[in-house]
Amino acid sequence: MISACQLTPESLRQIYGEDARECPFLNEQIPLVFSQSRQFDLVELEQLLQSVGWSRRPVRRVRRALDNSLLTIGLWRHDSNFPRLVGFARCTGDGVIEATVWDVAIHPLYQGSGLGKELMKYVLDLLRDMKIERVTLFADPGVVSFYQSQGWILEPRGNRCAFWYAS
Amino acid sequence: MISACQLTPESLRQIYGEDARECPFLNEQIPLVFSQSRQFDLVELEQLLQSVGWSRRPVRRVRRALDNSLLTIGLWRHDSNFPRLVGFARCTGDGVIEATVWDVAIHPLYQGSGLGKELMKYVLDLLRDMKIERVTLFADPGVVSFYQSQGWILEPRGNRCAFWYAS
Repeated sequence: MISACQLTPESLRQIYGEDARECPFLNEQIPLVFSQSRQFDLVELEQLLQSVGWSRRPVRRVRRALDNSLLTIGLWRHDSNFPRLVGFARCTGDGVIEATVWDVAIHPLYQGSGLGKELMKYVLDLLRDMKIERVTLFADPGVVSFYQSQGWILEPRGNRCAFWYAS
Repeated sequence: MISACQLTPESLRQIYGEDARECPFLNEQIPLVFSQSRQFDLVELEQLLQSVGWSRRPVRRVRRALDNSLLTIGLWRHDSNFPRLVGFARCTGDGVIEATVWDVAIHPLYQGSGLGKELMKYVLDLLRDMKIERVTLFADPGVVSFYQSQGWILEPRGNRCAFWYAS
């Protein structure tokens, strides 16, 4: 009998889409999968994203924001019946010149094992494949060293200053 | 005889689209028009954008970047036969939660008359109409006071730090 959490190449594609890719993880008993195409349960997504500062929003608006994103990436803990969302990131952009990464989140139970780094690597690989010229992101002060250690340049560095506007 | 630069409500709509709006300008002899729908001549656009640091790119890529933008706004010096592009801005984003303003440019001959401020006001009005939650932008150090005087908050202010990544 095949256990519900065993991951075969067929189940990888069937459950998570053609683009799915296994995510390296210390505990090989827990298969984790990146997917760009598996649909999100918006309640599950909202719970995950509250950890990075999301507020409650009407489901219709969230769905539209995801649909209009350049990329939406889920990191799933594999289970043939009930895959669970343990990570997320998305990008907006024009698909050519600019991309901006938003809402990078790893479920608290899965933090501290390098998954955030793997997720960002996966996102940047996809953007590189698309030949995007520049990638930007805004991050909380607590994760500055996380991004810097991966080659991200903190602003301002005398060249570009970032602004936001509460509309 | 109607002069080629006279702007009637009919020519405003016909030449610049239903969404067009006249831009306030000191010199009332020079009608200027905001439009979201009038097609750009990509050579003219590139010349304008080189003043904000654009490099030469294949036309096909530029067209795709514009097509994938949330908003592309032209500021035109009206002429019934040959409207000239004197300003530009565009936004990427998801249309709901996040929008980022890129490539804000006013032609050097038209700078210093408040057109940059009018352009940003027009962009923010559109984003506000779309009920976008947050607007971000990256700007050169030379225009920091320009944005600050209009209510933009410079990062980092102890909350969000901005990063970029050369992919």
